[in-house]
Amino acid sequence: MIASGLVTSLIGMAQNTVEKTSVTLLGLGAMGTALARTWLATGHPLTVWNRTPARVAALAADGASAADSAAEAVAANTLIVVCLLDDASVDEALAGTDLADKDLVNLTTSTPAQARARAEWARERGARYLDGGIMAVPPMIGVPEAGGYVFYSGSRELFERHKETLGIPAATTYVGEDAGFAALHDVALLSAMYGMFAGTAHAFALIRNEDIDPASLAPLLADWLVAMAPAVHQTADHLRSSDFTTGVVSNLAMQVAGTPTFLSTAEQQGVSPELLSPYFELMRRRLTEDNGEEGLTGVIDLLVQ
Amino acid sequence: MIASGLVTSLIGMAQNTVEKTSVTLLGLGAMGTALARTWLATGHPLTVWNRTPARVAALAADGASAADSAAEAVAANTLIVVCLLDDASVDEALAGTDLADKDLVNLTTSTPAQARARAEWARERGARYLDGGIMAVPPMIGVPEAGGYVFYSGSRELFERHKETLGIPAATTYVGEDAGFAALHDVALLSAMYGMFAGTAHAFALIRNEDIDPASLAPLLADWLVAMAPAVHQTADHLRSSDFTTGVVSNLAMQVAGTPTFLSTAEQQGVSPELLSPYFELMRRRLTEDNGEEGLTGVIDLLVQ
Repeated sequence: MIASGLVTSLIGMAQNTVEKTSVTLLGLGAMGTALARTWLATGHPLTVWNRTPARVAALAADGASAADSAAEAVAANTLIVVCLLDDASVDEALAGTDLADKDLVNLTTSTPAQARARAEWARERGARYLDGGIMAVPPMIGVPEAGGYVFYSGSRELFERHKETLGIPAATTYVGEDAGFAALHDVALLSAMYGMFAGTAHAFALIRNEDIDPASLAPLLADWLVAMAPAVHQTADHLRSSDFTTGVVSNLAMQVAGTPTFLSTAEQQGVSPELLSPYFELMRRRLTEDNGEEGLTGVIDLLVQ
Repeated sequence: MIASGLVTSLIGMAQNTVEKTSVTLLGLGAMGTALARTWLATGHPLTVWNRTPARVAALAADGASAADSAAEAVAANTLIVVCLLDDASVDEALAGTDLADKDLVNLTTSTPAQARARAEWARERGARYLDGGIMAVPPMIGVPEAGGYVFYSGSRELFERHKETLGIPAATTYVGEDAGFAALHDVALLSAMYGMFAGTAHAFALIRNEDIDPASLAPLLADWLVAMAPAVHQTADHLRSSDFTTGVVSNLAMQVAGTPTFLSTAEQQGVSPELLSPYFELMRRRLTEDNGEEGLTGVIDLLVQ
């Protein structure tokens, strides 16, 4: 039994060494640390570097190799994952590193333009490039049931090669060869979320001075938003077909006619309409004699220059 | 068997006559007509009136009694359901009707103040009053699986008495004795929905000129919004406890620091930031040295005068 256990351990060690891709991770903020722990926990050899060394020690104690410089960390492995504060930090950290023939995966929050520029920058240095947009907060990393995931875009070949390793911290969704698309999808979803948060802030403000328990409004709000979220499928169909009327039940004319009720209620409750009125104003601008049968899709084209 | 069948029929007729509450319905717009059809289909004796008689005929053919005037319709039954264009239409329709000892249920879209004034107005005329806010579009009426429902507030006694009849067109949710609370809940939920729609409009605008299929973005958007909607529970807990920091993962300082990425991306994509920037501006205003560890709840108090 002892011999058998030893053999199993040796096979385990061999598998760890042979099969698990070694990862270099630059950046140990809350997100970087969360990523690091999932790779360590699954037996991926991990080399870490952080601008300030405080967080390196804890990970080293858990089995990570601590690099003294970003250059040393980059030299250690082929797969280089970067998760820093912002695009400027990436410039700073990677200056003086040798990226030739490296697989560079940049999870640093970026705009699409920054991601595209970074992809070109990496190409000039001989690296393959994949950009990522993380749809999760650190506590969701390594917790598949939390539903977080990471958008990836850029080199499809690089994505396919490291899909399994990249899938350890969170699920992966590849959205195209354009290196800017991961950031664009990330920003699009989070922008929509901020709109929803603005709407719920207005809703809670309306009852703030009433004898209504916010905890009784919350489930009604959540259920209603969940029921209405699928409206985006109709919007998508409208945008694809350029027919903004198909399937519309509450048309633009009716909805514009309804807006005074919302604005009067806000005024009666002493609530600033500033989070609602910009959208209502676009609805009103979109409404002409010709398009009253449309739904709300036409507002989108008023936003785009 | 024939005798038994006859008895069953007689019992059925007796039940229809004795047990099904007779309803008077004023207003046969799309919503009124949808409500009417559900009561007719379930055997409720129904008297209808509409300002313009066009839609009355079709319902009369299906078994409704057509009243020549609102006064006649009101005189016909105790339970009077009103579903008109707006509060002014209610004034107009009910002028010259005798509301003494009537059970008046007003489903007309109103502000909370209009609903409260209408309750007082009804009381002065000797009527009991219940106000309703319909969380559904007409095609959802009589289709329980569509998930629509109606908020009711005002006389609890009246609600309990007619709960079953009122529950025929759509599920019912009673939200308090204050006659304005149904309208307030209705407006709160729809306001939050418009916020979400504003957010999704911005999201679709960001990809409008990119080679990204809106139908591939839509399910990502819907899933993300559904996953984020439960954030309202934390907001409610914050408002109840006046502690806006408990359970916060992405704090206000971090989120404000992230806003330039959203605004730059909008600019890069040629998208006006007008639907996002008011919320970001409130986040920025809320952020002081003392409350960077808060989440987003504090924005609500900036909206309320």
